[in-house]
Amino acid sequence: MSLQSELMQELDDDKQAILAIRRHLHAHPEVSFQEKQTAAYIKKYYADLNMPTTDFGDGFGFVVDIVGANPGRHLALRADFDALAIQETNDLPFRSQNDGVMHACGHDGHTAYLMVLAKHLWAHKDQLKGSIRILHQPAEEVSPGGAKSMIADGVLDGIDNVIGLHVMSSMKTGTVAYHLNETQTGRANFKVTLTGKGGHASMPHLSNDAIVAGSYLVTALQTIVSRRIDPFDTASVTIGSFDGAGSYNAIQQSVTLKGDVRIMKESTRKTIRHQITQIIHGIETMYGVTADLDYDDNYPVLDNDLELTTAVVDSIKAAHLPEVESVYDCGPQDPSEDFAYFAQEKPSTFFYVGCQTSDGQNHPHHSPDFMMNEDCLIIAAKAAGSAVLAYLNR
Amino acid sequence: MSLQSELMQELDDDKQAILAIRRHLHAHPEVSFQEKQTAAYIKKYYADLNMPTTDFGDGFGFVVDIVGANPGRHLALRADFDALAIQETNDLPFRSQNDGVMHACGHDGHTAYLMVLAKHLWAHKDQLKGSIRILHQPAEEVSPGGAKSMIADGVLDGIDNVIGLHVMSSMKTGTVAYHLNETQTGRANFKVTLTGKGGHASMPHLSNDAIVAGSYLVTALQTIVSRRIDPFDTASVTIGSFDGAGSYNAIQQSVTLKGDVRIMKESTRKTIRHQITQIIHGIETMYGVTADLDYDDNYPVLDNDLELTTAVVDSIKAAHLPEVESVYDCGPQDPSEDFAYFAQEKPSTFFYVGCQTSDGQNHPHHSPDFMMNEDCLIIAAKAAGSAVLAYLNR
Amino acid sequence: MSLQSELMQELDDDKQAILAIRRHLHAHPEVSFQEKQTAAYIKKYYADLNMPTTDFGDGFGFVVDIVGANPGRHLALRADFDALAIQETNDLPFRSQNDGVMHACGHDGHTAYLMVLAKHLWAHKDQLKGSIRILHQPAEEVSPGGAKSMIADGVLDGIDNVIGLHVMSSMKTGTVAYHLNETQTGRANFKVTLTGKGGHASMPHLSNDAIVAGSYLVTALQTIVSRRIDPFDTASVTIGSFDGAGSYNAIQQSVTLKGDVRIMKESTRKTIRHQITQIIHGIETMYGVTADLDYDDNYPVLDNDLELTTAVVDSIKAAHLPEVESVYDCGPQDPSEDFAYFAQEKPSTFFYVGCQTSDGQNHPHHSPDFMMNEDCLIIAAKAAGSAVLAYLNR
Amino acid sequence: MSLQSELMQELDDDKQAILAIRRHLHAHPEVSFQEKQTAAYIKKYYADLNMPTTDFGDGFGFVVDIVGANPGRHLALRADFDALAIQETNDLPFRSQNDGVMHACGHDGHTAYLMVLAKHLWAHKDQLKGSIRILHQPAEEVSPGGAKSMIADGVLDGIDNVIGLHVMSSMKTGTVAYHLNETQTGRANFKVTLTGKGGHASMPHLSNDAIVAGSYLVTALQTIVSRRIDPFDTASVTIGSFDGAGSYNAIQQSVTLKGDVRIMKESTRKTIRHQITQIIHGIETMYGVTADLDYDDNYPVLDNDLELTTAVVDSIKAAHLPEVESVYDCGPQDPSEDFAYFAQEKPSTFFYVGCQTSDGQNHPHHSPDFMMNEDCLIIAAKAAGSAVLAYLNR
Repeated sequence: MSLQSELMQELDDDKQAILAIRRHLHAHPEVSFQEKQTAAYIKKYYADLNMPTTDFGDGFGFVVDIVGANPGRHLALRADFDALAIQETNDLPFRSQNDGVMHACGHDGHTAYLMVLAKHLWAHKDQLKGSIRILHQPAEEVSPGGAKSMIADGVLDGIDNVIGLHVMSSMKTGTVAYHLNETQTGRANFKVTLTGKGGHASMPHLSNDAIVAGSYLVTALQTIVSRRIDPFDTASVTIGSFDGAGSYNAIQQSVTLKGDVRIMKESTRKTIRHQITQIIHGIETMYGVTADLDYDDNYPVLDNDLELTTAVVDSIKAAHLPEVESVYDCGPQDPSEDFAYFAQEKPSTFFYVGCQTSDGQNHPHHSPDFMMNEDCLIIAAKAAGSAVLAYLNR
Repeated sequence: MSLQSELMQELDDDKQAILAIRRHLHAHPEVSFQEKQTAAYIKKYYADLNMPTTDFGDGFGFVVDIVGANPGRHLALRADFDALAIQETNDLPFRSQNDGVMHACGHDGHTAYLMVLAKHLWAHKDQLKGSIRILHQPAEEVSPGGAKSMIADGVLDGIDNVIGLHVMSSMKTGTVAYHLNETQTGRANFKVTLTGKGGHASMPHLSNDAIVAGSYLVTALQTIVSRRIDPFDTASVTIGSFDGAGSYNAIQQSVTLKGDVRIMKESTRKTIRHQITQIIHGIETMYGVTADLDYDDNYPVLDNDLELTTAVVDSIKAAHLPEVESVYDCGPQDPSEDFAYFAQEKPSTFFYVGCQTSDGQNHPHHSPDFMMNEDCLIIAAKAAGSAVLAYLNR
Repeated sequence: MSLQSELMQELDDDKQAILAIRRHLHAHPEVSFQEKQTAAYIKKYYADLNMPTTDFGDGFGFVVDIVGANPGRHLALRADFDALAIQETNDLPFRSQNDGVMHACGHDGHTAYLMVLAKHLWAHKDQLKGSIRILHQPAEEVSPGGAKSMIADGVLDGIDNVIGLHVMSSMKTGTVAYHLNETQTGRANFKVTLTGKGGHASMPHLSNDAIVAGSYLVTALQTIVSRRIDPFDTASVTIGSFDGAGSYNAIQQSVTLKGDVRIMKESTRKTIRHQITQIIHGIETMYGVTADLDYDDNYPVLDNDLELTTAVVDSIKAAHLPEVESVYDCGPQDPSEDFAYFAQEKPSTFFYVGCQTSDGQNHPHHSPDFMMNEDCLIIAAKAAGSAVLAYLNR
Repeated sequence: MSLQSELMQELDDDKQAILAIRRHLHAHPEVSFQEKQTAAYIKKYYADLNMPTTDFGDGFGFVVDIVGANPGRHLALRADFDALAIQETNDLPFRSQNDGVMHACGHDGHTAYLMVLAKHLWAHKDQLKGSIRILHQPAEEVSPGGAKSMIADGVLDGIDNVIGLHVMSSMKTGTVAYHLNETQTGRANFKVTLTGKGGHASMPHLSNDAIVAGSYLVTALQTIVSRRIDPFDTASVTIGSFDGAGSYNAIQQSVTLKGDVRIMKESTRKTIRHQITQIIHGIETMYGVTADLDYDDNYPVLDNDLELTTAVVDSIKAAHLPEVESVYDCGPQDPSEDFAYFAQEKPSTFFYVGCQTSDGQNHPHHSPDFMMNEDCLIIAAKAAGSAVLAYLNR
């Protein structure tokens, strides 16, 4: 019996453990950068198995190193474990017990499958070439993200490649999907406060209306995507927050806007930042307001290494997993991912495991009724396991 | 000694009472429509003098009728007594004892002078022709205002004319000012909620951005004053509140804007309401949002009756009050006043008594450091008293 | 018989001469700064009467001085004589014989009445105190106007006051109207060319769209009147020309906008110029275009001297002209007038003579079917004549 | 010697004929739908060779049918022959002799190579399977394009596939380029006239400013690309013409805007048309103007058939043409092409032949100094010839 067959069998046999872990994590979610109990829970699991852990970065991130008996390549396998500030509306036995916090993106599932996979890979380490670094990352959801400081702390030293995956409620359970090269958008965020001069609504000439300046700013920002970007390129600029609440009869002294930028090329990121900055300077001149701009270029474009991705996809296909109906190129995806930081450092790949519920209803990520079909978890474990074994054997 | 001379002397002698009342009211402010203790305090004063009061309207408004021994004309003399939801920052012995509430517009002074003047006119009623209705009005600051329901309740039945006054921190203490005909702006307020469709910032095509719709609305509203109004006419349209606070990476589902309109002609009021309504309909069509508009045409233009105003001004000038340096036409004033409702019903006049502090600093009405020079109060009492006597004698 | 009665009689007797001159001028209009034949025609009239003329200024302007036998004040009486680049559509025996040029503002009438009045005043010069300068001005319609260079050339040296008048098709024939102090708007004009980068419509990122920049400029300019001007003040900012014609599939490299500004206070003029300049600078920054701004502050606010205007109005009323039904204050008027330059230099007054046609139709000034009721001309002559005699006698 | 080798040799030998034809056409350009002399010139060439022509469509289009001796597939080979309304600035011996008209897109070259290739294919028709329809098309540059009516007239009846090519000055001479599936944008054009009410600049309230309405329209149109289109999709909306020229002091009664839309999916075309229509309706409501919209959905997205394109590219590569350095996927191209109509009807392919001049200067298509490196023409002839022979032999 091949190692591949053995591992698949062991994962099948340990399916309930994945579910149990996932449900425990789901019931006890913690928001980004505050995942103390979550990290402790995972570490306890490894401690019980005598698998040592090592901390990395500013947050609660850590790794488990599975070193094979024979020399070979060094792979990192990453899962994130933070939750979101959302109040769950699902009525589940294991629904969130923490008010206002919810695993609404599936990171509980990522962590659960990886813990069980790690246990079984550890058991086979004498048969392995090279090594596997199991990378448990905090704070994927919130800039600057958990990856950055783990990398700065050396978590990728000596690592050749990184693999990650995300469950996707927009994709059918039973599918595995991927895309080559640029795959998820890069992101920037900015906050700008425009300050004019407050006053009485009946005397506009004695004031300087910040709501008017802010509104013209929003209309001007539309020209970035409409006129400055190659129609064949990808970009979005969104003002997600226009905070100018006040009273009927007073002119607002200041307003604060928060913005979000998405791109698929780093050159586009620069173009947009330049344009936003210029437009805000122009608003200052036109409307006599002062602008205080705080611009944060954060997650990079997620670039899936062509060779590694092709190899990982090929090995998943070659595994002929009975739960997997199809493996397909899903095209680029709108959201951003801080896995992109790993991919900036080392040739990496990030793929998707469909987790749509069978009721045919839409339970989108980041919604209070996000729900995954838990059948996706054994697929995740087997697909990642197959990819790891094939990688180390190559 | 003439009645005029007697009354002036009596007011001089009772100056401390005016200050005491004003300071008591200042220390115990109550916001519009909630002036329960204030009304009780004033009524107690009259009860102690055996002057009966009669309630009018939905709020805490009431009158004292001073009926002369001889037939004549029937005048109402109005003062307002509500305060504002402002936290006082002045350090005065009699500073506001009610957190977040402040007499920041001078209504405490209006009420104080009128109570003392009423007392002395009552004492002379056997010498008077006609009658004086002392009108204590609540809730001038907040639409629909206290005047409206008092009028509906009959407070002007049998009244020929109404006189009111306002202390003005922008005018020098020692001055009395007036304007003929249209004198203070009429007002409308509106609230509009634009509802699109929320969603993820990286997928604008799946959402419908309410902040964008709201911003274009603000820019379009500028054309009303710039293009629809006769340059020789007066109008302002202000968006005082743009409530669209949200997060960086989500597209806002809805925003709520609050607006303020000022006009000097009722025909202009209609033009502006029509234009605002059309512009909002256009925004619905252009941006596919639904708009929920709540439009409140409230305070009318304050129209000072030409004949009455001229007569009142003449009688104040003729009184040669030693405290008054000048009586002048100050031109029209930006703010709105619900005294305008009285002036809609009966030929009325509303004049101004300068109350600028002698430190030369600016303490504008409705600011947390509003302050009046209390010397204005004896001027108010004497000017109003002189006007009343001259009116009844004519 | 008084001099006043004599003059009125003489004007009545010479009514046909006024009509003849007016019709001759109407048939032979010349545009501003090109009134060569017009000036020659008027001068010939005076030469035939042995009345010497003296040229002033850069254009075809000149004066006739009528010096009284006795010392006194020195008055100038002004009429303009230029026509407009409009094709007349009226079917009159004396319709314009010059294609594309028309006396569509009534200057033909101004000149005609003044010539006949001058003739009769000259005849009485031995009875007069002081002097009258008959001032025939070219080029009122077009900036910089004909007045400016005549003044620079000394036309007002030794003059105490100036009187002018305008026929008004919006006012009933038989009325004379006036306003005190600020009476007609001041004006500025500007031209701005925005230059971006042309290119193919399918590749906006390689171009810089001047039409987009120009359009945002127009929307931003609306905020000047809506937010920067006291609602009690008067202002308009109009973009009268947006020249960006091109093809469907090319992005425009540059657009040229022409603007018009009206004000009633010189301080407002400064505010608006500052705001326009700032807004254009802001557009440059926001949209990366270069702006070439040519700003021309031209006609001042026309300020009618209070004392002189009152005296002139009183003398017209006192004349009890049988053709005049009423003399009234018409309030301020929207258009601008280069008579304002005279009023800047000397206490002056400019009044209006109704010339509405009796058919009840609207024939507005500057329209191709402008028409005056010629009955206005004898009114103009008599009103001005009465004002002059009263002035010199005072 | 293979037929392929023979044909390549014959084309090499006839290279001067291609140049001579191209230069004749270049010197005698005619704009779209008026190519009478051009068509006569080409037909004369075929008549001299006893090759019959057949007219198709509303314009000057026609075909030559080359029917092989043996049964097989039926291919059409298309070249366009219209020029542009551009004044040539190049100083060439064969520069345009028609003022204001220029072959500035290379259609002269397309026609020249195809005529010579047709001659040689005709000479070999006894050796051929199937047939080749040589398709000379007028009016590619201007909607509705020449292809549409030729198709309606049956020009594709019995045809299996269509091949076309374009010389490209942005691509190096010596390269052949292609793209699979959606390759050039689809297009729509629209013209909208907004009519308000003209008037005097000093009286905006009596007018209705069409320039203001048009400017707000332009700013609103920016939101289509910025908010309504998937960031991963392709779209542009350009206002190429804003015709609102007028005078300083009059408010514009109406303005006319011309727009251009580009898309890569037919569903996006529908979305944009709907949004433009809605936005224009909204402008009518907001600004009280009437809009007259003329919307023309014209050229489709050019969809290169995957199988045919791959086969054509393979046959060009297999020909190992000595003049061709590389054959590569150039990605999608911004401009639109009415060849797309053929591709809508039959599986077709459209490829590119680099024609950049060797001086390293930029001579873009549709510019007055457009220039092609004529070395591209033998490449075009050989590449198309190789593709045809391989196609018929398959």
